[in-house]
Amino acid sequence: MASSFGTLFRITSFGESHGGGVGVVVDGCPPRLPLAVAGIQADLDRRRPGQSAITTPRQEADQVEILSGLLDGVTLGTPIAMVVRNKDQRPGDYSAMARTFRPSHADATYQAKYGIQARSGGGRASARETIARVAGGAVARQLLRHVHGIEVVAWVEQVHDLVARVDPATVSTAQVDATVVRCPDVAVAESMIARIKAVGQEGDSLGGVVGCVARHCPAGLGMPVFDKLEADLAKAVMSLPATKGFEIGSGFAGTRLRGSEHNDAFLATTDGSIRTATNNSGGIQGGISNGEPVTVRVAFKPTATIRKPQNTVDASGASVVLAAKGRHDPCVLPRAVPMVEAMVAMVLADHLLLQQAQCSLF
Amino acid sequence: MASSFGTLFRITSFGESHGGGVGVVVDGCPPRLPLAVAGIQADLDRRRPGQSAITTPRQEADQVEILSGLLDGVTLGTPIAMVVRNKDQRPGDYSAMARTFRPSHADATYQAKYGIQARSGGGRASARETIARVAGGAVARQLLRHVHGIEVVAWVEQVHDLVARVDPATVSTAQVDATVVRCPDVAVAESMIARIKAVGQEGDSLGGVVGCVARHCPAGLGMPVFDKLEADLAKAVMSLPATKGFEIGSGFAGTRLRGSEHNDAFLATTDGSIRTATNNSGGIQGGISNGEPVTVRVAFKPTATIRKPQNTVDASGASVVLAAKGRHDPCVLPRAVPMVEAMVAMVLADHLLLQQAQCSLF
Amino acid sequence: MASSFGTLFRITSFGESHGGGVGVVVDGCPPRLPLAVAGIQADLDRRRPGQSAITTPRQEADQVEILSGLLDGVTLGTPIAMVVRNKDQRPGDYSAMARTFRPSHADATYQAKYGIQARSGGGRASARETIARVAGGAVARQLLRHVHGIEVVAWVEQVHDLVARVDPATVSTAQVDATVVRCPDVAVAESMIARIKAVGQEGDSLGGVVGCVARHCPAGLGMPVFDKLEADLAKAVMSLPATKGFEIGSGFAGTRLRGSEHNDAFLATTDGSIRTATNNSGGIQGGISNGEPVTVRVAFKPTATIRKPQNTVDASGASVVLAAKGRHDPCVLPRAVPMVEAMVAMVLADHLLLQQAQCSLF
Amino acid sequence: MASSFGTLFRITSFGESHGGGVGVVVDGCPPRLPLAVAGIQADLDRRRPGQSAITTPRQEADQVEILSGLLDGVTLGTPIAMVVRNKDQRPGDYSAMARTFRPSHADATYQAKYGIQARSGGGRASARETIARVAGGAVARQLLRHVHGIEVVAWVEQVHDLVARVDPATVSTAQVDATVVRCPDVAVAESMIARIKAVGQEGDSLGGVVGCVARHCPAGLGMPVFDKLEADLAKAVMSLPATKGFEIGSGFAGTRLRGSEHNDAFLATTDGSIRTATNNSGGIQGGISNGEPVTVRVAFKPTATIRKPQNTVDASGASVVLAAKGRHDPCVLPRAVPMVEAMVAMVLADHLLLQQAQCSLF
Repeated sequence: MASSFGTLFRITSFGESHGGGVGVVVDGCPPRLPLAVAGIQADLDRRRPGQSAITTPRQEADQVEILSGLLDGVTLGTPIAMVVRNKDQRPGDYSAMARTFRPSHADATYQAKYGIQARSGGGRASARETIARVAGGAVARQLLRHVHGIEVVAWVEQVHDLVARVDPATVSTAQVDATVVRCPDVAVAESMIARIKAVGQEGDSLGGVVGCVARHCPAGLGMPVFDKLEADLAKAVMSLPATKGFEIGSGFAGTRLRGSEHNDAFLATTDGSIRTATNNSGGIQGGISNGEPVTVRVAFKPTATIRKPQNTVDASGASVVLAAKGRHDPCVLPRAVPMVEAMVAMVLADHLLLQQAQCSLF
Repeated sequence: MASSFGTLFRITSFGESHGGGVGVVVDGCPPRLPLAVAGIQADLDRRRPGQSAITTPRQEADQVEILSGLLDGVTLGTPIAMVVRNKDQRPGDYSAMARTFRPSHADATYQAKYGIQARSGGGRASARETIARVAGGAVARQLLRHVHGIEVVAWVEQVHDLVARVDPATVSTAQVDATVVRCPDVAVAESMIARIKAVGQEGDSLGGVVGCVARHCPAGLGMPVFDKLEADLAKAVMSLPATKGFEIGSGFAGTRLRGSEHNDAFLATTDGSIRTATNNSGGIQGGISNGEPVTVRVAFKPTATIRKPQNTVDASGASVVLAAKGRHDPCVLPRAVPMVEAMVAMVLADHLLLQQAQCSLF
Repeated sequence: MASSFGTLFRITSFGESHGGGVGVVVDGCPPRLPLAVAGIQADLDRRRPGQSAITTPRQEADQVEILSGLLDGVTLGTPIAMVVRNKDQRPGDYSAMARTFRPSHADATYQAKYGIQARSGGGRASARETIARVAGGAVARQLLRHVHGIEVVAWVEQVHDLVARVDPATVSTAQVDATVVRCPDVAVAESMIARIKAVGQEGDSLGGVVGCVARHCPAGLGMPVFDKLEADLAKAVMSLPATKGFEIGSGFAGTRLRGSEHNDAFLATTDGSIRTATNNSGGIQGGISNGEPVTVRVAFKPTATIRKPQNTVDASGASVVLAAKGRHDPCVLPRAVPMVEAMVAMVLADHLLLQQAQCSLF
Repeated sequence: MASSFGTLFRITSFGESHGGGVGVVVDGCPPRLPLAVAGIQADLDRRRPGQSAITTPRQEADQVEILSGLLDGVTLGTPIAMVVRNKDQRPGDYSAMARTFRPSHADATYQAKYGIQARSGGGRASARETIARVAGGAVARQLLRHVHGIEVVAWVEQVHDLVARVDPATVSTAQVDATVVRCPDVAVAESMIARIKAVGQEGDSLGGVVGCVARHCPAGLGMPVFDKLEADLAKAVMSLPATKGFEIGSGFAGTRLRGSEHNDAFLATTDGSIRTATNNSGGIQGGISNGEPVTVRVAFKPTATIRKPQNTVDASGASVVLAAKGRHDPCVLPRAVPMVEAMVAMVLADHLLLQQAQCSLF
């Protein structure tokens, strides 16, 4: 329940920062899908800390091992279990923090809920848990590509108050990965990198916005009531650590338009399909995809772990001042890009299968 | 699957605009809860069209009938089935529209998915479907109040570019319902009403933002990974018709702060509980409630149905100009207030039960 | 959770004996299925008490009303809500029993679980709850027939120690319904009817076995691990009131064979399909249907309600003697026939959709 | 979906015979449960092939590794992931069989469903998959013991036509494990062992019945409608490989009693609790446990793999004669004992949590 995501394309995640490893079981992936392990590893490498000068320096190999579900490069229709080993199995560095509730972390709520100090690197609230998502999302992405040529591309759209201009219709992963900050607007990317470095040196951190598009989605994905495609996308990305907001299509900006300005006029096309003149709907109408690009924006707060001293309390309720030691990750946004792609891809894969179930029998 | 919401506190919704009726089955509500039918009806009355000069004129009685689950004013622990009869069982007024895809409505996507023209008042995409949500939410609200005195209050915070100032710590339903636009900032409320009337007379429509707070939530609600409290809240409200965005706590504005500005410092209190100095977290940290007010914002696009002529296509793919006849609802925001409250309340009720399951056994 | 059954073809049941009514919401039925309400009513009529001299005399019309999901005789793909009104909304006859726990009824366990006396005709444990199942099953049966010509036929195979001989390969509903006891072996049927009458006049009751076959199931339905087809069938029929046992294929008798006797040899056929020489497997191997008839047997205990005086206790824990007044139903088996068909049909419909989801995408 | 079992206490299973390993993720186990890894390993050792002269000779170490969810011998409330490595990662011995459908195995149905030859030791239909169940069940058993002192004990009750006499009220695991055939009736056990050896030497196999009791279950577990305790138990054990039948309480034999003979009279007790004079109900009434021992019987067919030559077809549809090489397991019953215990324990654990959710809030 708590650790599974999806209905038919369904992942179950496990692992803390300091146990034997973290991993995921992907259940429901159809049989006979060619699945490249190298592609899964590549997505994990994009998520990994320590990729560049602007992220956390902790070096983790994060080598994925496939335990089941795959034979001779093709899926069997059985659960695909993947595990990434932890280097350090015992909590250590965190011992000092164990007695102190880090502000805006999960330490205090975890204690309230489970009656346990999540010594193991933040328990399940650890960023390392996202390995499971990215690995599961990598399978979903290969499925989407195989079936309909669906592409899911995310990018860093905003860091602090620096806002990039990105065209969802054309942006490519190559453009995104061209800069370490994963912003395809090169000029703004440079400013972002400089800002992150400067703020990181002050021991502080920054947030921002990740944009994401899914292109070539067929019309018909999503359900009309509770499981609207945008509702499932919202849950998916809002389950990522540090997220504070979600938009589909026109988002909050759309609230300032009139209906006559916001409505997407339908256009007749020569091939009989229906297109829309604009895409304020973000590719979804009435909860169901309409064939236009699905466009999503996700707000990430500034990283909670900073080196600047902060007022807080310890587990006994006494006031203390906390200052994290060592280096920290001043901006999680570049590493959040593959996470958002993974969550969006898994929602689409799930709805592809749901659509197949409900509407392909006769 | 498609028509159920929640895990342990779970509703199943049914009904189109023009069948026998719309309704809901609430499953999982604990036994021996005093449940006032008058309270359910009151919530439904707040959702109903035709309440005031600024909403749709269609008069619907929307009288709820309880079919099961209640005896002598107390729940039995069995499913609570509620139904609201439709007045007009047959599609009629919609016949002209039946051949035309209304822009930014579900007509075209519903046709693509189901191969059926949703003549019945938009099929499940009808606003009338939200009766089920409000009735289910009314049960959840009475449960929350009974158990922990939890209050869920929503209000209209923005219409078009008119933004109200509302204090989530103190705002009451009485203040919200004091104006027909359900904005507790009286001065701004007057401007909103004038704006809605003016734009409505032009045959156009407006969107805006609904704010919502849940006060007195105990710490510990929510799950650390996929079923984070904010993720389930996001799905809940993004499944409402016409929503385009969701925020928890600081939301998109929080992306422009530094970590040192955004982190909520923990405070020692005299009673041993832990509070935070600020509430950028919106009452949730690491996916789990921390005891502070849970604060949510929801973006609604301007209503898709307008009287102004629009370019569109019909089911045969030919270009046509559509102008809706009769009156329309120029702004759905006031009626969206009880809908948002209902969805938030059901998520909290579900997590109360989940928390009970996982953490109360020993 | 508690009141829903199925994954993709999913029903949600509601209603007590003495509230407003009992009903069901069928979610997940594909759109554009021709659905005959007369067929649903016919299945309900076979379940209804008072059909013949050997069943309970309580006369209930049990007229079904379709509230949603159907337009012009065709499904919309939306939830199909059906309700059957109760005649008597208030508990009455049961008041005397309200203070006494009827032996082998749910009275005592319901009190232990819910802290409520299920005055309303046994709460959810009422036989009237099976209306929801039969109505949902009727939809499933029409779906199965439409898609693959799948037929589900059940019959009374044993009453007390009277055992009929029935050929699952050929038995028809017409043969089953030819006698009031619903046993297609006419000679044994007469003995059964006489036995039921005699025992009923003594104020006692009888149990027995219902057999069921599903013919023309395609190969491939069912999952290899937990959701094996026989596992889901077992849960389905063991959720019917008064069931004590379940068998697939050779059942308990198969435990007395050797492997060389029990294994079903595969046969080559001229059309390239694979058949088996025998069907000890009951049409399922490794949890997945193999194309042979699916054969099930279900044990029903003798009805718990009898007129003979019985020792029991009341809610205060004091010993009392209970003798039910009026007439009773001496043998539930004939009415159980449509219930078993309904449960089996719903499991097959669900697995048809699941199979479609997992194995039809490419 | 396909590879998960349970609602709140939920396991997800993965692994084929010849991939990297088989394993399980246990989700929903409450935090702060003392969990002994030695106890899990002990249960796995009882399931392992090669324990005695009468089981399959294949020697597997089956050493469990805990990857997550446990710290310092106490559960964290997070998923408990466990993996058992496979010795041989590549299919080999099975290559000859790969082209032939083994009678009453899953080979043909797996091919029909997935379009893949389950070369990997029968795919998910491998007996090795039950490692996941036994490991998950071991966690459930420790939870049950910790909370209510609930004991789950299973035994071999019948092999071929040899039937043991066992008292569910008193039978202990020590008595069960005293003989290699796991039958606590010592005299019958000797006959069973002799029969298994003799039939095994002929290259043939035997089936039988496993009995199981759960003692000290509190009243109140189970749901009144679909998720009746006996329904969930039936699904649980009927999902085990080679099962053909299920009984609760009086089972099929109960169908030959009259109501006056079958009903369990309630008894007043001195401590105010309610007991029953007999236990034909098998500890469950109306789907809900009543505090009496829960008694279950499970029919297992004779093992499908035999050395005797059998008629079958190959993947091309041609008739062939198959004779398995090497040694085989002539009777799976002794190893099925821990499997049945595991499945029963997991159902009870799940219902304990469900009961907590629905009935402990106020």
